[in-house]
Amino acid sequence: MGEERKIPKPTIKRLAVYYRCLSEMISEGKMYVSSKELAKKLKIKSSQVRKDLSYFGEFGKRGVGYNVRSLATELRKILGIDRRWRVVIVGAGNLGRAIANYPGLYRNRFDVVAIFDKDPSKFGLVIGAAGPVRPMEELESVVKSKKVEIGVIAVPAQAAQDVVEQLVKAGVKGIVNFAPVTLHVPGNVIVEDVDITVLFKAITFHLRKRP
Amino acid sequence: MGEERKIPKPTIKRLAVYYRCLSEMISEGKMYVSSKELAKKLKIKSSQVRKDLSYFGEFGKRGVGYNVRSLATELRKILGIDRRWRVVIVGAGNLGRAIANYPGLYRNRFDVVAIFDKDPSKFGLVIGAAGPVRPMEELESVVKSKKVEIGVIAVPAQAAQDVVEQLVKAGVKGIVNFAPVTLHVPGNVIVEDVDITVLFKAITFHLRKRP
Repeated sequence: MGEERKIPKPTIKRLAVYYRCLSEMISEGKMYVSSKELAKKLKIKSSQVRKDLSYFGEFGKRGVGYNVRSLATELRKILGIDRRWRVVIVGAGNLGRAIANYPGLYRNRFDVVAIFDKDPSKFGLVIGAAGPVRPMEELESVVKSKKVEIGVIAVPAQAAQDVVEQLVKAGVKGIVNFAPVTLHVPGNVIVEDVDITVLFKAITFHLRKRP
Repeated sequence: MGEERKIPKPTIKRLAVYYRCLSEMISEGKMYVSSKELAKKLKIKSSQVRKDLSYFGEFGKRGVGYNVRSLATELRKILGIDRRWRVVIVGAGNLGRAIANYPGLYRNRFDVVAIFDKDPSKFGLVIGAAGPVRPMEELESVVKSKKVEIGVIAVPAQAAQDVVEQLVKAGVKGIVNFAPVTLHVPGNVIVEDVDITVLFKAITFHLRKRP
């Protein structure tokens, strides 16, 4: 896992959001940005921006701020997106198909190279660049031959652990898990969970009437 | 926003995950659970479980643990899901349609009551319980007549701010934002962002080769 100090998870996600902002600024032709401006755009504190970036070195110049292009380049390296990554999706239901077709992935250097399902009635159905839906039996050979590093789990909760084991056995090292269940994986596999209903509950927590 | 101490955002999301675990335990007939067991299931520290719950009172008994059903009931109240919520989706592309069809929402007490798009070629297309795709012009009247409290943004980044303004004007108080952009909303509106590419970058941060 490298030699860096332990980086908090929220910091990593904010780095990805800073990168998104900087990309917008590049397309707007902006040359320099201060931590204050970046913070304002993201509605966080500027001290948070400086702290998040300080884990990785000194990027800004006092009074001038950050060079937008250089910081974007650094963040691309830090986030590992100075190269393309190959992704497979397991589950060709509505969610799996939506992710396969999500235009932001390709733009952000993630290539969805295949999609799998266990339902024979879906086999062969072409899902954008992911190509035809394939049977689970082909998972391992596709992951190996296409050197796939990331797997997306878009199957129901009860099928997810079995799927993650197949992905890990095939050699996948990173998992984006949309199934509402905590997965068990070896220590060298990274899992990023997103339970859609949890997002809604984080909202109703605030909206509910307090007694 | 109530009188409780400021609750950290990660705590709120973990509460939703504890609730998900407890629901599974109820269906398995489990009566009691310790913070240690709950922590192990979620691969976090048991002190974290106790700290998260301590914001809201004393739930467990030393040596016995938590009563699964009572804690689930309490969490349902804390998370505001002791009642149903009405949701609209804006954007009837792949992602919007996938969310409208996501079975976990209904099961977790979120009713998707309508879906909107600006593309006339989609109008009338029926998306599960959300019904036919409606034009944006109907947004305000539907939100008001159906007493909708939550809006989902599933449109491209460049359209998202305009959509959120329409949702807020119509009276929506909570937003789940799938567009990769930071939205500007009044202080009484809660936004939960989920940028799918950020999840992938949180993984490549760990998978990348360090120099």
